[in-house]
Amino acid sequence: MGYPRSVELLIGELEKLPGIGRRSAERLALHILKLSHADAVALAKSIRDARVESRRCSICKNLTETPTCDICADPRRDLEVLLVVEDPRDVEAFERAGVHRGRYFVLMGALNPADGVEPRHLGLEDLVALVKQGQLRELVLALDPDYEGDGTALLLAEALRSTGIKITRLARGVPAGSSIEHLNRAVLQDALEGRRPLI
Amino acid sequence: MGYPRSVELLIGELEKLPGIGRRSAERLALHILKLSHADAVALAKSIRDARVESRRCSICKNLTETPTCDICADPRRDLEVLLVVEDPRDVEAFERAGVHRGRYFVLMGALNPADGVEPRHLGLEDLVALVKQGQLRELVLALDPDYEGDGTALLLAEALRSTGIKITRLARGVPAGSSIEHLNRAVLQDALEGRRPLI
Repeated sequence: MGYPRSVELLIGELEKLPGIGRRSAERLALHILKLSHADAVALAKSIRDARVESRRCSICKNLTETPTCDICADPRRDLEVLLVVEDPRDVEAFERAGVHRGRYFVLMGALNPADGVEPRHLGLEDLVALVKQGQLRELVLALDPDYEGDGTALLLAEALRSTGIKITRLARGVPAGSSIEHLNRAVLQDALEGRRPLI
Repeated sequence: MGYPRSVELLIGELEKLPGIGRRSAERLALHILKLSHADAVALAKSIRDARVESRRCSICKNLTETPTCDICADPRRDLEVLLVVEDPRDVEAFERAGVHRGRYFVLMGALNPADGVEPRHLGLEDLVALVKQGQLRELVLALDPDYEGDGTALLLAEALRSTGIKITRLARGVPAGSSIEHLNRAVLQDALEGRRPLI
């Protein structure tokens, strides 16, 4: 007999979300249907509001509700070193760590043609324009150390070649606090290849 | 600096959903923010609509958009054998299997005081009232074979004792199509205890 129409529609919408299969969508839908009317409306409203109220920062392309995000609007930020990241979560990670005093540029993804992420989705023209403004001294690619991140790094290097800007990428190696015995081949290979003199 | 306020609110709402932690909520929120305006509104609307339009069937308590669900409204259904299930998904499973010709009663949960599911949430009074109408001959407890399901079965047996109705439960044993070598102790114990003569 199936679920009521409105429930099927909800399951269908939830199933479109990343990492949510049919079973998870059913589970989430049944949970939502058990919520109080007020809680269900709050959830729906938060989705609509976030999509309507948030926009991309005019400078770094991160999420913001103002034309320029708090970081780009902060006059104490170093304007010479720019960290290029894939995702707003990466900005959060660096801000929590407190290890970068410059600005960011958020690609909002990594090159992944199989997943529909093409070069034109990554805001390369905006990044090139930012570099051409001339304040930057160095651009650090802080991309995920994986296939998509590496492909994106090559793409960026190519797109920025004509600007002559200095481009670096994060060091790769054994992560602080880990146990060597649990690290995989790729990590250990990076760590060996990138070994540095101790004294 | 954190996410914009509306994004934080959305993450907070998503985090309330079952099985969604902070990380998953962030991932879902960032996905939602990349949706077209129309798609985001469709998702929000489906949540609201499903919650507003769906109700509980007046007889079996399953989800429906009409006062009585399609199954309870079907005159060809056997009125003598009632299957008591925890969840609308269980009704779907039995309907897909096509092995039950009677009606259902949906508890919408299983006894789980630690999770806030108390006897009063399971509609026992409605079930007792249904039994007392006198058409039923047998009530089959088709509850999950786990701690919560077993506790719920005991609770139901107690609540229904005064009605004198015949109460059965699903057989437990090795699941069809499985390999003995991969089954755990509880399954094998059930299967041995419930062994039946072959001829």
